Amino acid sequence: MNITLTSGKTVEAKEGESILDSLKKEGIFLTSSCGGKGTCGKCKVIVQSGNVSSTSQMKLSQDEINSGYALACKTCPSEDILIDIPKESMLIVEGQIATGKSKDLQSHLQASGAAVDPIASRILIDLPPPSIDDNISDLERVKRELVANGIGCLRVPYRLLTKLGKSAREGNWQITLSTIHSEDCYEITNIFPGNRTSPHYGIAIDIGTTTVVVYMIDLTDGSLLDVASIYNSQIQFGDDVITRIVNATEHDKLHNIHSAIISDINNLLQLLMETHDITSESIDCFVTSGNTTMTQLFLNLDPASIREEPYIPTANSFPLAYAGELGIKANPNTPVYVLPCVASYVGGDIVSGVLATGMHKQEEVCIFIDIGTNGEIVIGNSEWMMSAACSAGPCFEGSGMKHGMRATEGAIENVNINRETLDVEIEVIGDSKPMGICGSGMIDAISEMFITGIINQKGKLQKDKSDRVRDGEDGPEFVVHFGDKKDIVLSDPDIENIVRAKAAIYAGFSTLLNEVGFTFDDVHRVYIAGGFGKFLDIDKAIILGMLPEMPKEKFEYMGNTSVTGAYLCTLSRKLREEAEEISRQITYVELSVSNSFMDEYMSGLFIPHTNMDAFPGVKALMGH
Amino acid sequence: MNITLTSGKTVEAKEGESILDSLKKEGIFLTSSCGGKGTCGKCKVIVQSGNVSSTSQMKLSQDEINSGYALACKTCPSEDILIDIPKESMLIVEGQIATGKSKDLQSHLQASGAAVDPIASRILIDLPPPSIDDNISDLERVKRELVANGIGCLRVPYRLLTKLGKSAREGNWQITLSTIHSEDCYEITNIFPGNRTSPHYGIAIDIGTTTVVVYMIDLTDGSLLDVASIYNSQIQFGDDVITRIVNATEHDKLHNIHSAIISDINNLLQLLMETHDITSESIDCFVTSGNTTMTQLFLNLDPASIREEPYIPTANSFPLAYAGELGIKANPNTPVYVLPCVASYVGGDIVSGVLATGMHKQEEVCIFIDIGTNGEIVIGNSEWMMSAACSAGPCFEGSGMKHGMRATEGAIENVNINRETLDVEIEVIGDSKPMGICGSGMIDAISEMFITGIINQKGKLQKDKSDRVRDGEDGPEFVVHFGDKKDIVLSDPDIENIVRAKAAIYAGFSTLLNEVGFTFDDVHRVYIAGGFGKFLDIDKAIILGMLPEMPKEKFEYMGNTSVTGAYLCTLSRKLREEAEEISRQITYVELSVSNSFMDEYMSGLFIPHTNMDAFPGVKALMGH
Repeated sequence: MNITLTSGKTVEAKEGESILDSLKKEGIFLTSSCGGKGTCGKCKVIVQSGNVSSTSQMKLSQDEINSGYALACKTCPSEDILIDIPKESMLIVEGQIATGKSKDLQSHLQASGAAVDPIASRILIDLPPPSIDDNISDLERVKRELVANGIGCLRVPYRLLTKLGKSAREGNWQITLSTIHSEDCYEITNIFPGNRTSPHYGIAIDIGTTTVVVYMIDLTDGSLLDVASIYNSQIQFGDDVITRIVNATEHDKLHNIHSAIISDINNLLQLLMETHDITSESIDCFVTSGNTTMTQLFLNLDPASIREEPYIPTANSFPLAYAGELGIKANPNTPVYVLPCVASYVGGDIVSGVLATGMHKQEEVCIFIDIGTNGEIVIGNSEWMMSAACSAGPCFEGSGMKHGMRATEGAIENVNINRETLDVEIEVIGDSKPMGICGSGMIDAISEMFITGIINQKGKLQKDKSDRVRDGEDGPEFVVHFGDKKDIVLSDPDIENIVRAKAAIYAGFSTLLNEVGFTFDDVHRVYIAGGFGKFLDIDKAIILGMLPEMPKEKFEYMGNTSVTGAYLCTLSRKLREEAEEISRQITYVELSVSNSFMDEYMSGLFIPHTNMDAFPGVKALMGH
Repeated sequence: MNITLTSGKTVEAKEGESILDSLKKEGIFLTSSCGGKGTCGKCKVIVQSGNVSSTSQMKLSQDEINSGYALACKTCPSEDILIDIPKESMLIVEGQIATGKSKDLQSHLQASGAAVDPIASRILIDLPPPSIDDNISDLERVKRELVANGIGCLRVPYRLLTKLGKSAREGNWQITLSTIHSEDCYEITNIFPGNRTSPHYGIAIDIGTTTVVVYMIDLTDGSLLDVASIYNSQIQFGDDVITRIVNATEHDKLHNIHSAIISDINNLLQLLMETHDITSESIDCFVTSGNTTMTQLFLNLDPASIREEPYIPTANSFPLAYAGELGIKANPNTPVYVLPCVASYVGGDIVSGVLATGMHKQEEVCIFIDIGTNGEIVIGNSEWMMSAACSAGPCFEGSGMKHGMRATEGAIENVNINRETLDVEIEVIGDSKPMGICGSGMIDAISEMFITGIINQKGKLQKDKSDRVRDGEDGPEFVVHFGDKKDIVLSDPDIENIVRAKAAIYAGFSTLLNEVGFTFDDVHRVYIAGGFGKFLDIDKAIILGMLPEMPKEKFEYMGNTSVTGAYLCTLSRKLREEAEEISRQITYVELSVSNSFMDEYMSGLFIPHTNMDAFPGVKALMGH
């Protein structure tokens, strides 16, 4: 049977194979954050002609079902069919966002005082051909040449030896070595005949609990070629790290959970390679950054003890792994560097973030907060650093929110509500048709709704205030955007979600500051990270009570610093060493046992906060 | 269908499966040097009842066929059968020989001034259990403990990390690490819960062109637990290294040839493990020694350039490999140390031999000769060493000889012919029923036949001299032993074989000595190695003209020094370093382009030699 797309492309479908799988085999990837279980509703397609059989229609509205919508993961064609794939279902390469970020990243690297000195390098060598008078072995010939070029220590894993003889002769005694610098030694990871010094790429990966982001980096100049992201399909084993640990250990699913993230990475990698016509031979390294649990699951390490007192991970600093050992579909010898973690609940993503901010080299006390599925906070300077974790949940990444989405094309990222008319103005990433709302859009919308009285201090929608407040499936909801086919709304449970998350974040700040005997006045700078896309409106985040009221110039929004740190480590040996040092320097403080944290959290469940004295500016605004 | 053995054991046979394969599955291994191609005739069985179908009877005599003999590799049962396995067909563990050698080996190790300091060691550590106040990761905990014990550098391959957390908790914070010392660092190769410091074993392997010998060594005290050997089943791809290289490179059989030796090693290993009830978890390392081609084939390295001028191997010194990478059936992380080679035609077996003799530490000039499938010679002292190779062929290992066999139980190893009566007296290894004749037996027999005039100076049998000279299948033959069922003979082609081999060896000696400007008088000691079993009668080897006529006390017969060197390297880091140094120190001289070698060879085709002046003692004996 054939599946024809409205774009004209035709794909073959086997009996009983889902549309999702048939498309995947042809390199067409749909978003499916539940991993094809039929529970996330993200892989919608519209069947325009032909019969299909579906085993689930979960998350589809009656209107959608009537219009031919189906879940690609739970639907098989019964005959030849014609389908349309809505833009929001497509897993896309985010070239547009990438272009904007590439220059920033390269200047970030320069600002760190680090040269482009990638973790993986290619070395071109011209060997003198052997003769009866110069009949040393191929390996000795290579080593002799490298020593002459100042490279003294060379490690050649046995499995690479099998390629040496043939490559040298095929390349007429010119060969290119892919190498990684590790433990003061060059280790060969691949051998090519002739000059193959370019192209070569590195892959930096942020393994978030909710979202996985992959950067493809040109190692010759450090430029960012492209970016792709996807929901972490481990979501099928739980939204949060604890549920996933329980599934891994008590339900014996470790291997499945490990395979889920590997498969996500393989999908993104394949997509990027196909888009840019790159073969896996050109990929020389992987660098990953993630929280401690994500890191252990990525490495297939039993996470049981992370969850049990005294909360011990298997390791915080990791030996190099190889793609083949992990199941990553690349040259099996490609090295995988994993950013070091601090403790069970402060991971490599935070080390990566601190590295990206540079606070570990500053004299003044700074704060770094990463708002992902958890909120992790680091406070300190070049002398000392303390860290803590507060559970914020994945709402800012769009997960668990009715029309939430990641900060990719089609996401509403900016919301303004006219103080008089209550008209709503939105900005959409990529200036395209809005498909959902991302974290920064949510913060904007809720703080604007609060200032205009559409919600009250408890976050409850006021029905009489605006026509846009209406009754929806899940109770009252606010229409952010009226669409042709679908309106984009924030529902009552959505707003509750956000208020709980911002309360946890603010409580984290204030508890950790108290712990080290500082106040917000002592803080020189607050670095904010998270998957909010290009912008985060600091003023609005203060109105919401997520951030403390401080002079605006003290805040700096850094975007996804986990992947930025992975990018930096891909390109600089010096910065990798700094990352290892940061992980050793940070002290972890356990908030979950702190009464003061619970008190602070409860006080934060109001907008902006129960203690209005901490928010004089917002108070003035409310008075107005 | 069932195959019942006369011993009482019953084995199941599948339709169309050879008797050889059916037995193998049950751990009963028959000798099959051709690898089951039906050409070597070594896997004979006697079918006592039941019908079978055979596709080949090559190498079986009509008498044997009449008595029910069949080739196990080319015979399938058609119904339930009863078979007898003749002792000479069984691949056996050579416990008896081993016992004799174990003490020698251990004193050899002591004499080298090396302590028992195995390449692989087990480290027992008791970790303080983690607590909230001591919550470093499992890996850091292990490293901290090892640093406290003076072990600074520890390498933990990623794949081992996956075992750490569980082992530590299962062992109640006591764990045992299997480690190997490499590049000044301990590298973990396995992790066990609790105290598993013993048993642990190392496997030393001599990979000969014709024969593979495996030593199982108790690493706790250096004692030799057992020995097993087998014909190298690569023989199916050629008797000599050149034919195997041609097959590997021009007929694309590299992988098959590599698999053949791996399968031989796996068979011997399985046999030893079953015999001694040892699991693969107790095996901590493999050390192999072989000529350069055998080494490359073992490592699956393309040997093409070894055969082509300027005769370049891929490597002479090898990185550690792991059992899993090579297909060896053991814990895949078990390290495999491969003895370094010198050049394309002087390999790790010779380095191993020099190490075993200790000549690299002596002031006086010594000669070492290893008589295997090739004859390789080293001359030198602690200051310098020169080496050369001369092609002797595999006859002394029993290959290509009508009733030739390795020096294992049942082999005639000693032959005396009464000067008057011409009666023949034999000694058999293990004092058992003679099954064939090994290298030392052949040398004895031929030199005795020469002295008694049964053969002339050209090696031709004199029919009128003895009743034991008769016409056989391949022309004239000499009956060494009259058996109940089978006589053991040396045929005319067998004798020619031996004469050519001894001529090549003697030519090698004299050419290399000339090359460095020495004479036999300058030589302090001659170390002789080879698969001759426990003895080699030096006097008789001189009569044959294989060894030069020198005072007898200058000769020392060392047995299989390739496996001795592998044994020594298994047990001593110091000796491994010496082996690496020896491989760098030896200079290789190419004899094949030497006219003087060809002249010497031609002169050696007489017994003892054309130049009788070099053999005054033999001349006197002949006069007598």
